[in-house]
Amino acid sequence: MSSFKNHEKLHKGETHPLDDVLESLRYNNDDLIPAIAQQYDSGEVLMMAWMNRSSIEETLKTDRVCYWSRSRQSYWRKGESSGQVQQLKSMAFDCDGDTILLKVDQTGPACHTGRRSCFFHRVDGEQVVIDSDPIIDPQTLYS
Amino acid sequence: MSSFKNHEKLHKGETHPLDDVLESLRYNNDDLIPAIAQQYDSGEVLMMAWMNRSSIEETLKTDRVCYWSRSRQSYWRKGESSGQVQQLKSMAFDCDGDTILLKVDQTGPACHTGRRSCFFHRVDGEQVVIDSDPIIDPQTLYS
Repeated sequence: MSSFKNHEKLHKGETHPLDDVLESLRYNNDDLIPAIAQQYDSGEVLMMAWMNRSSIEETLKTDRVCYWSRSRQSYWRKGESSGQVQQLKSMAFDCDGDTILLKVDQTGPACHTGRRSCFFHRVDGEQVVIDSDPIIDPQTLYS
Repeated sequence: MSSFKNHEKLHKGETHPLDDVLESLRYNNDDLIPAIAQQYDSGEVLMMAWMNRSSIEETLKTDRVCYWSRSRQSYWRKGESSGQVQQLKSMAFDCDGDTILLKVDQTGPACHTGRRSCFFHRVDGEQVVIDSDPIIDPQTLYS
């Protein structure tokens, strides 16, 4: 069990060394941990992707969000090809150390479809409705 | 490849049958999909947990959020033992169908530690700081 169990009794303002916390995060069998990106001021949840320890450290060092791409098996520096970067505002870990919450300032769309948020399939009764349109033509994002 | 690729070109307001979408979600090797719970009015991200198809369907039918507990290998009807239920306000799937966003009305704390949100370990330079206290003593939550 990670040291997160021991943190539960800590009070607001108490601290723990970052290195120890990164070591005790509960990465999955692929050494990855899910990271939620939320627009820091509006609160909109933009996307969810995966990080490994190196991408967490790079993100903290550069204040630009860097994920790990499972499909490409490589670092995914958000906005590297599209220009739609995520500037890190804050990073937090959950109670049992298996999820990250990134508060970011997202330039333009977070979604590869050109939509602001990836969560555009909303359940509506027995249907799923598309609830937003692209704010940028995706053809122009990756040209 | 799931049918999600085909949804990218749909416009706002266009629909797709829920059953087909649930069938084409990209569940992992354990037949699970991560679900983010966000307080619907304040926008606060409360927690992340996992759902299978049955727990998604139960959640939509009852409007009470039901996860799948990986540790207990059973349904986890949020608040069943603590009373701290999540009433579903809306459910959405992301662009590639591998993550769910639940907008909920959370009674009391979402976190088993008694804190409102699970994301209370915030990175602050070379330290991680506890940035909230319990709103309810966890001893009283599970008695």
